[in-house]
Order: sequence, then C-alpha cells, then structure tokens
Amino acid sequence: MIPATTRKSFGSDNHSGTHPAVMRAILEANTGDAVAYGADSWTERATTELRRLSGAEGEVYLVLNGSGANVLGLGLLLARHEAVICADSAHINTDECGAAERILGTKLLTVPAPGGKLTPELIASRLSGRGDEHFAQPGVVAITQATEVGTCYSLAELRKIRDFCAANQLRVFIDGARLANAAAHLGCTLAELAEHADVLSFGATKNGAMGAEAVIVMRAADAVNAPYLRKQHMQLSSKMRFLAAQFIALLDGELWLANARHANAMAARLAAGLAEMRGVEVVHPVESDAIFARLDARHVAELQREWTFHVWDEAASVVRWMTAFDTKESDVDEFLRGIAAVAGSATI
Amino acid sequence: MIPATTRKSFGSDNHSGTHPAVMRAILEANTGDAVAYGADSWTERATTELRRLSGAEGEVYLVLNGSGANVLGLGLLLARHEAVICADSAHINTDECGAAERILGTKLLTVPAPGGKLTPELIASRLSGRGDEHFAQPGVVAITQATEVGTCYSLAELRKIRDFCAANQLRVFIDGARLANAAAHLGCTLAELAEHADVLSFGATKNGAMGAEAVIVMRAADAVNAPYLRKQHMQLSSKMRFLAAQFIALLDGELWLANARHANAMAARLAAGLAEMRGVEVVHPVESDAIFARLDARHVAELQREWTFHVWDEAASVVRWMTAFDTKESDVDEFLRGIAAVAGSATI
Amino acid sequence: MIPATTRKSFGSDNHSGTHPAVMRAILEANTGDAVAYGADSWTERATTELRRLSGAEGEVYLVLNGSGANVLGLGLLLARHEAVICADSAHINTDECGAAERILGTKLLTVPAPGGKLTPELIASRLSGRGDEHFAQPGVVAITQATEVGTCYSLAELRKIRDFCAANQLRVFIDGARLANAAAHLGCTLAELAEHADVLSFGATKNGAMGAEAVIVMRAADAVNAPYLRKQHMQLSSKMRFLAAQFIALLDGELWLANARHANAMAARLAAGLAEMRGVEVVHPVESDAIFARLDARHVAELQREWTFHVWDEAASVVRWMTAFDTKESDVDEFLRGIAAVAGSATI
Amino acid sequence: MIPATTRKSFGSDNHSGTHPAVMRAILEANTGDAVAYGADSWTERATTELRRLSGAEGEVYLVLNGSGANVLGLGLLLARHEAVICADSAHINTDECGAAERILGTKLLTVPAPGGKLTPELIASRLSGRGDEHFAQPGVVAITQATEVGTCYSLAELRKIRDFCAANQLRVFIDGARLANAAAHLGCTLAELAEHADVLSFGATKNGAMGAEAVIVMRAADAVNAPYLRKQHMQLSSKMRFLAAQFIALLDGELWLANARHANAMAARLAAGLAEMRGVEVVHPVESDAIFARLDARHVAELQREWTFHVWDEAASVVRWMTAFDTKESDVDEFLRGIAAVAGSATI
Repeated sequence: MIPATTRKSFGSDNHSGTHPAVMRAILEANTGDAVAYGADSWTERATTELRRLSGAEGEVYLVLNGSGANVLGLGLLLARHEAVICADSAHINTDECGAAERILGTKLLTVPAPGGKLTPELIASRLSGRGDEHFAQPGVVAITQATEVGTCYSLAELRKIRDFCAANQLRVFIDGARLANAAAHLGCTLAELAEHADVLSFGATKNGAMGAEAVIVMRAADAVNAPYLRKQHMQLSSKMRFLAAQFIALLDGELWLANARHANAMAARLAAGLAEMRGVEVVHPVESDAIFARLDARHVAELQREWTFHVWDEAASVVRWMTAFDTKESDVDEFLRGIAAVAGSATI
Repeated sequence: MIPATTRKSFGSDNHSGTHPAVMRAILEANTGDAVAYGADSWTERATTELRRLSGAEGEVYLVLNGSGANVLGLGLLLARHEAVICADSAHINTDECGAAERILGTKLLTVPAPGGKLTPELIASRLSGRGDEHFAQPGVVAITQATEVGTCYSLAELRKIRDFCAANQLRVFIDGARLANAAAHLGCTLAELAEHADVLSFGATKNGAMGAEAVIVMRAADAVNAPYLRKQHMQLSSKMRFLAAQFIALLDGELWLANARHANAMAARLAAGLAEMRGVEVVHPVESDAIFARLDARHVAELQREWTFHVWDEAASVVRWMTAFDTKESDVDEFLRGIAAVAGSATI
Repeated sequence: MIPATTRKSFGSDNHSGTHPAVMRAILEANTGDAVAYGADSWTERATTELRRLSGAEGEVYLVLNGSGANVLGLGLLLARHEAVICADSAHINTDECGAAERILGTKLLTVPAPGGKLTPELIASRLSGRGDEHFAQPGVVAITQATEVGTCYSLAELRKIRDFCAANQLRVFIDGARLANAAAHLGCTLAELAEHADVLSFGATKNGAMGAEAVIVMRAADAVNAPYLRKQHMQLSSKMRFLAAQFIALLDGELWLANARHANAMAARLAAGLAEMRGVEVVHPVESDAIFARLDARHVAELQREWTFHVWDEAASVVRWMTAFDTKESDVDEFLRGIAAVAGSATI
Repeated sequence: MIPATTRKSFGSDNHSGTHPAVMRAILEANTGDAVAYGADSWTERATTELRRLSGAEGEVYLVLNGSGANVLGLGLLLARHEAVICADSAHINTDECGAAERILGTKLLTVPAPGGKLTPELIASRLSGRGDEHFAQPGVVAITQATEVGTCYSLAELRKIRDFCAANQLRVFIDGARLANAAAHLGCTLAELAEHADVLSFGATKNGAMGAEAVIVMRAADAVNAPYLRKQHMQLSSKMRFLAAQFIALLDGELWLANARHANAMAARLAAGLAEMRGVEVVHPVESDAIFARLDARHVAELQREWTFHVWDEAASVVRWMTAFDTKESDVDEFLRGIAAVAGSATI
C-alpha cells in the first residue's frame, strides 16, 4: 500500500476525488424515482450526447469501470475463436489480471511496442499464422489512446492503423481510458479519434468522474449483442442515472476537455522543470498526464518517503508520475523542488 | 421501458435514488487524494465494520453491482468443474442473462421451489448423479435471502440447509441483495444470517446506496483468490472510497436496518390494505419489501397507466409491487386507493 | 461399474466393439505416410461423401467424440452471449457433465419434453424474455434425433421446428449421435434429415465405428470459424486418416444404414417379445435401438445379476435396454427368456 | 497443404501411421462387449501400468489428443484465476490456436527461452507482480519435454525447475507429447522424468499410436476433479478400450522406448550427415527426433518439391525435419543425398 500523505499524489489520476461539477450533477440526479438499468432521462441524455460527440451511428453503453469497458468492447468485436493483437505494454495485457483471457477466452497476441504504440508493421508481425487452424487467429487490434506510457497516436498514425486493419479483416478497438487527454494533446474532437475505431471506450473516471466509463459502438451492427454482454459482464448499473449524470457534467461545456487540458498542462509543467535537472531523465515523450522518468534507485526511495507515486520498472529504475484534473501548479512546483532536492544534481 | 411518473414507483427498490445520508457520506469522502483500488481508510473502515457485523473471519470485498457480487461469490466457492444448485426462481438463474454460466462456465441445477425457498429435500433431489463423470457435479448451493418472491428463510430453515450442505460436501452461497430486508423481518443480526453461509453478498444498492455491494467471505481460506477474481470479473473500483463511503453511511447507526424495516413496513401496510380488497389476491407471504399479487389482466393494464410496476407472470396475471426505503405511508395509501378504484370490488 | 459378462450387453450401443468392415478400413489406411490434421485423401473422401449424402453446401468436420461434436456444433451457431433451448432430457443437458456451459459459457434453457421431443409450442415457452437484457437470449434450438428416449422426430415434426425457428431467428442444431437409427426408422435419406438443421452431428461411434463423429455445417457461412473452434475444442485429430477411414467404411454400400436397421430391428424384436409379458411395461415408443421399460425394482436387481444394462430412472423403476449393430436375434431371444423368467408373470 | 509423396515424410512424427504392434493390440481388443467410458479391463491394465512406470500415486487418464492432454493437465493444477508461465515457443502458446485461453480462461505468461527451455531465472522473470491484484498470477509452470525445438531438459535442469517451483508456490506441468524421445535421449526411466512434475502428459500418438495420450496425475489430491474435467473437456472416449490397447502395446516390452530410440537415432544419423555439408546449419542441439536447420530459402523451395517438411521460421529460413518410429536408415540416407544435391556445397 502506498502511504497517503497530505501532499498531492502523483501516483495516479485515480487518486483524485470527484470533480465538484460531477458531484453536483450526481446530487441533482438524486431526485425522486427513475426507472432502473438505464431507462431514464439522464442516460438518454448522456448517451445521446456521447453519440453526437463521437459521431457514432451505433450505440453507447455506460459501464462501471475501465476493465469492464475494455472487456465488453473487445467482446463485441471478437468472433468466438479470435485473438487480440495489442502492445505488450497494453493495460489489457499487463494491468487487468488476465481479465480478457478469463472473461472472453481470447488470446492476446502481444507485440513489443516502443513508446507504447502499435504500427501497421508491428501488427503485421502477428499475422503470419492466419488461416492455419493451429495458430491463434487475430480478429481485433487493440490500441490505447493515450498509451500506457503517456504518448499519443497522431491522427495520421491512427489512420494508418485503421486503413491497415480494414485491408486485413481486423477490427479496431481503442482503449480510451485517457482518451480525453489524447484529444487535449492533439487538439482534435472526440469524433476525429473515434472514427478510427470500430468500438472504443471513453473514460470518465480518470477525468474527474467518481466512476463511470462509456463503450461507444460506432456502427449499429456491432451493437446488436451489447446489452446482453454488458449484463453478462456484470457492467449494467441498476441506478444508472448516477453514471449518466457524471457524463452529463463532464460533457457540459466541454469540462472533460478542460480537465484533460489541465492535467496535460501540469504534466508539461513538471516535464519542463525536470528538463533542467541533471539527475532525472524523462524516458518517453510527455503527451498526456504521465511522466516516466529514470532516476537513481536510492533517490526513488528517498522521494517516496514524502511523495506518492509508482515505480514503473524496478530493474530500470523508472518511475511514473501522473497529474490529474485537480493537480495545482503549486503542487507541481513543490514536487519539483522535492525532486531537485533529492536528485537534481545527481548524475545518471 | 416503464414510463416514469411523478408518482412513487412500485416497480423496484432500484427505482429509488440515494439515501441522503449516503449522499452526504459520498460528499464527505470527496476530500483530497486517496490511493486507488481500496487501499484507503474508507475501505478499511467499511470492510472492518462489515467483518465485525457479519462475524466473518475471512475478508470483505466491495463490488460494483449485484450480478458482480453473485458471480464473484459463487466463483470463490466453485471448483473449476462444479455446478450450482439453486431455486428455478433465483435471480442468478432468471435475471442475470446467464452471467454465471458465461463468466464461470458453471451449470445451474435448478429446482422448482415453492415460495422461492430451497429445502434439504429439494437440494437432495439434484444430488443423484454425484460421482458419475457424465453428470454435472454440484459444489455450491445458492440461496436468496430475502427470496425473489419476497419471502424469507427462517434461521431454523437456514440452519437445516447449512447442516445438510455441510454433511454433503456442498458450500453455501447466499445472494443477499436484500439481506437487510430479511434481517429486519427476522429481527436478527447480520451475523446470525451470515453464519449459515460460506460466502454471501450483502446488498446496499436496494437499501439506499447509489450502487455498492459487498461480498463477505466467512473463512480466510476461501478468500485467498478473491482479489484476483474481483479484478478479473471487472468488479474492482478504482476510486473505491466512494463505494466504501456508502457502506459507512448505511452501517452508521444501523441505517441499513432502519431502511429495511421501513421498506418492509410499507410493504406490510400495502398488504394490509390489499387484504380488504376482493379483486386482488396476494400470492406469497409478505416478508420483505415485495408483494406479489394476482389481479385481472385488464386491471393490471389500467393500473399501469398511472403507476409504475412490473408484471411478474403474464400468464398467471401476477404483478410485483415493491416498496423502498423512501416509500412514504401516503404513497402506499394513494396506491391502495388507486388499486381499489380499479380492482377493489372485482372478483378473481 | 457395470460388471461385464460374456452375455451380450444391453447397456449401450457403446458397449459394442468396432464393426469388422470399419476395422478393415482402419487397417487399410495404415499405409505409409499421410499429412496430419486432415490434409489427406481419406479425409477428403469421407468429408466429400458426407457433404454429398447430407446435401450440405457448407463443410464437414470430423471430430473425436459425441460431446465434442455437440459443443463444436453449438459453438458454430451461438453468438457469444446466446443461450440454447433444449429438452430437459437432452444429452447435452444431462449426460455431458455441463460441457456446453463450461466450454461455451452458454445457458441451457430446458423444457420438459414428453417423449424427449421439442415442439414449436415448447420452444415458444422459452422465448418470453427475448429482447430484455436481464434474460438469457436463446439463439439455438438443439434437438436430438433419435432422442434420448429412443423416439424419432418425424420429418413433418422436424419441418415444423425448422420453420418455427426460421420465423423466430433461432438456429437449429441436431445432435445426431444416433441419426442413423432415425434415418433407418423413418426410411429417409440423410439429406432429408439434415435439411432441417443449420448444423448437425452425425454419429459413427454408436453405429459401429471405433470412435468418430462428424459435424456437418449446412451452409458455408456457418463454417468460417469451424477449423479454429475444432482445434480450440481439442477435437482436431492429428492422424485424421484413421477417423476418416471409419466413415469411409460405414458410408460404403450404406453400411451405416444397414447397421442402424439391424439395431432397430433387434430393439423391435425385443419390444415385440416384451409385449407379451405382464410384468414389463414399455414406456416410450420403440423407434430406434433403445427400449425404456418399467418393471419391479426387485426384478431389475435380479436381472442385473446376469445382464448388463442401465437403470434410467431409479425412482420410477425404469430401465434402458439398448441393442446395437452386433446384437444377434439369439441374444435378444435369450434376454427375453431371462426377462420372462424374472418378471414375465409379474403384475406392475 | 503439404503435398504427400511416396517418399518418407520428414514433416512430422504425426505423418507416420500406426505401429503394427499397436494395430494388432487394437484388433485384439475388438472382441465382444466392453463397458464404455473406461470401465473395462484394457483401461485398467493400461492405467495401472502407466502409474507403475511413472511412479504416480495419483491417477492416469487416457485422452484423445495432445491439446486435450495439455488443457486437461493444466486445468487440474490451475486455480480459477491463475496464469501459466511457459516458453514463448511452447506448443500450448504457438500451436493450439489459443485452446488454453479459450477453454481454461487462463493467461499464458510467456518467456523467450533459448533452446526452448525454461530455467528458474527465466521463470522468476515473470513473478514480479505476484500478490498484486492487477497482475496475472502465475500458478503453474508448463515445460515441454522434449521441447518444441527438439532439445531435452536434463534431469538436473528439471530438478532445478521443480525445486524452484516448489519454493515459489508454483505447480509444474510437463507437456510430454514427446516424453518418450526425452527418456530415450536421457537414458532415464519415465519415473525419473515424472517425479519433476505435478501433472504430465505422456504422448503415444507421435510414438506409434493411432491416437492416444495419457494425463498422469502424480498425487491423488490433484486428481479429484479430473474425471469431470476430462468429460467437460470432451476428452472422454466411449469405446475407451481402443485407446487403452494402444498404450498396452507400446508399454509391452518397452516398445515406446524402442520406438523413441529409433526415431532419435534416425535424427542423429541425419544430423551426422548434415554436419559434413557446407550449406546447411543445424541451429539447435539434436536431442530427440527433430532437426532444425538453416539453409538458403531457394534451397528450401527446391527441396520441398521432392520432400515433405515444414518451414519453421520463414524469416530466418529455418526448417524442421522430423524423424519417426518408422523412418528407415535408407530414408535418411536418401534425404541426405537430396539435401546434398541441393544445398550441400552452398555457403550460408
């Protein structure tokens, strides 16, 4: 357990609480009765708005958490026997305890992906056994936007993947737990991201929600089975209005984008400060709300006595520092002073 | 979709919103950072209190919804190849879209159970093929307390089932989505119910929470795999403190029991009023917050124009009327007047 | 364990060995090398002939046993979330240890079916929850021909089921472990049976093979995933020619039909003999190679000391007597004398 | 499809037919009736002998093919949520179409393993996330003996793995599809191999059987669920005597060992011949019945016009040549002449 401190956590965008506007929306939704399981006006409003923003001609399903969104989304696209191609660093491969395999019975065909990003070439490297019954048959390519290491696919990169997949009978799933951060970084709309996927998740939890994610199905044909799979996957909330209200608040006035921009800006501020330190090396481009940095293992330990963050790769002595919608400039500056005091003049 | 009206819904205890005290607790938990996934003080407090109340020597796991609680709970007790014995009316059999089969790969060995209740005799009727590899092998008996038809197992009935199961190498799971209502009806403690199970769920959502359930594992040996299965089953909340806060509010000053008593009392009030009407026949003992009533199909249709409730069995023209923590006496009385106007003098 | 005796077993058509012609074909196939996993000329010949006989425009897959054929066949037709409607007496429900649920994650929606046969009305009784995400969604109707209780659907009955299913977006799977016996009873071709199914199994093992079954996919669109699912379901034989050779032998000169006719005739001879006994009541029409008979429990026990057969329903004191391709008239007559000696003059 | 020729195939030990002694045993077992599903004397004899030879205190289960043996064996050792550590070249990872993931819902945690062999160090590299619910939890280490690239673990290497696993709460499964070849290479008994596993498969098919594998469970406690899982996994043969007879023939007079020694010797002869050629590089130690060789891609194509074998790694231009129990010295010599004619004087 990471000890909580009164200092701002740089451990995860999940360490933050709920954005005040989201909380207000939840409170406002707590009025009288509403039919359960999504047959309510809040859900209607949230999903309609998500369809509009994403350009989806299919349907939108609110679910309870990120793993739920990923497993449901993949399940909508996979034939019963198919496998998934993903980066070896993908959340579905490394951080969900094998949920995709357990729940979907699918195999993840992983590819070492520098910077966390797949390319047509990397995807092609896992296609050699197609048509041979002895080999797992990839049916879906899963990409993460923003990636696990905080980078973002450009729209051009997404287009190349989408076109390659379309030409190779592969469906595209985007794990968008931090899709807002990618949109903020790229300066693009949600629709400009979504058009590269068949199904995508759109994460609200890390963006300031209490706990809510959306699965966006771009074409109606892929949504036929979705209500049943959501229920079977234990992702159907009974008092759905409280999930919907969170989305309503975040979508209202583009709060989701403002939150993401702010988190990204705080990460950029942190990165800018680090650039001047000798003892810290930023190992991935900072394109969302995460910074991956290498510093001496003793400095890591010393910093963790005062600050909350994760060691990402113990062997390489790489840590992850994350900002969030509620990280303040002063938090970043204080953290920078703390890092500087420990590692600022070190040689690595 | 059931049309929402401004009148109190008798459709489900899920149609109610969140109890004000629960909402306050959620608001109070929204303070600063907390380590994600349950390593926070709210979760510590909620699970500690649930262990104490239930007498569990094992562990307590907060999950996102009722299906999640049921599937996780069953999964903790089932060997890989085993089947579940349950009443044919069990929620896991009829209302979860086949989630147990889908997620656990288990077979449900159902038994027609009058009043929704299993007995040792009914359980024994599904044990004939044990030890024969051709037949599904029951490993768990799943009972629902309160049952799907609103009845409650007495403590004596539970004891008989527990003893029978112990003598027959069967584990006991209690689906406690409405366990509070059963405790209120029986006038017993949570521990007096829990001691008859190996694993049980304890539902908060229908009791006034926004959306939170607990899986209580009575013995530590059965909890070894639980954190991983919870994650694989997509039931691990990242901002867990907001689930925990709901339980804290409900456990504080026994609000959970007060809410359940109130809902039960409203159902009893409704039943008392119905007893005087000729055109409505209550078909199950009213022992929790649900009333199952038979009335003429035309009267059902007429009533549904003004009131929200479910038809339970269309062929038999049986409806389900549910009360909740926030049903008022005046709601019941108004509903009774509505029923009387439509069906009060009918002959059935 | 049923004690083996030197007397002909009436326990199962699985108790017989391999028909001499099948054994010869296996021996003849044991010549030099053959490419593994079905890319051999025997497999080509067997599957071509099975396609021709069944009228399948799709493909034929040889598999290792009957459960494998059933699970593969159902898996080809089921969407990921769908359930199966079947008779409660269906082999997939009662005799395969829950394999369908375990491997496919599907729910079996069972119907009490007198005489083991489904009808459109019985199927319709399980369709009430369609379109509601809380209820299991039937996608496939599985029927058994001949049924578990030895009866056969007439072609007219099959047509009604097929038409009902087509009109209700349900696919049809036929468990044809004893399809040969049905064809023999009905005096119809394999194609006349197969045309009522989307996918069917065609059993050879009980018909005189050593161990081989075929999954016949009537339309090519349903076969797209079949090679991969067969492999994942562990039903792909490496030295496939030895499975294929068995089918070649049985198809040659319609040996499969001759074997089935003989087994049926022996069952009919047995039934004719029983008709004259007072102490034995045949409880299902004898339309294939099985006879279900009720006799006094003490007589059952006495008979089992000398003869091998199964008690089907202990409570009702009903036994199953099966004939096979190698049951001789003298075996039947000797068995009849044995039964007569024990139960012939009894009153039941 | 690899074109079959009249020349001996070097494509796979699965291309061979059935050993004459095995065929004789099958014929001899075809006598009268036998109770189905393994309750027969052949099965009793085969499993008793396998228990004796392997030193198993548990039980032996005959199954239908190698994937079936692997999935059943792993399933016996895995807790519901656990993952498997294996070499990335393992058959279960590369050649079974994702069967382990599909059927068991498990994740394969793969390790690049030079020479196809795991070591304690390689295993340890996949243990870092243990105890953290976000990471897949390894419960079983699967090794292949002989490996996919034809090498063999020494007894000392096996002991190190077993001891490491025992010290780290990991169970050991050995995929023994070619265990006979390993025993022949190491000059050890089956028991000396089996003692390093908790469960292992013992392959007969590649050793001269028609199609039969055994799952050997070393301790009785691990066998409790095996009959049911075998049935659910569609690996229970009805006319089991014909599987058992194959083992009886191979175990009789240590035919299994003679067959393996012969196949190994033919591979060694081939390797010896290759050692003198300039244009062919053997890339793995030849320790069983497989040779992996690198030669010019044009030479591969030219050779494949006359000979049957697989390209193992197209990018590296590595082919696999396999011998079998029925490969003759003259076959090897003819093949060597063929290779020499094509590639013998080439430079690679």
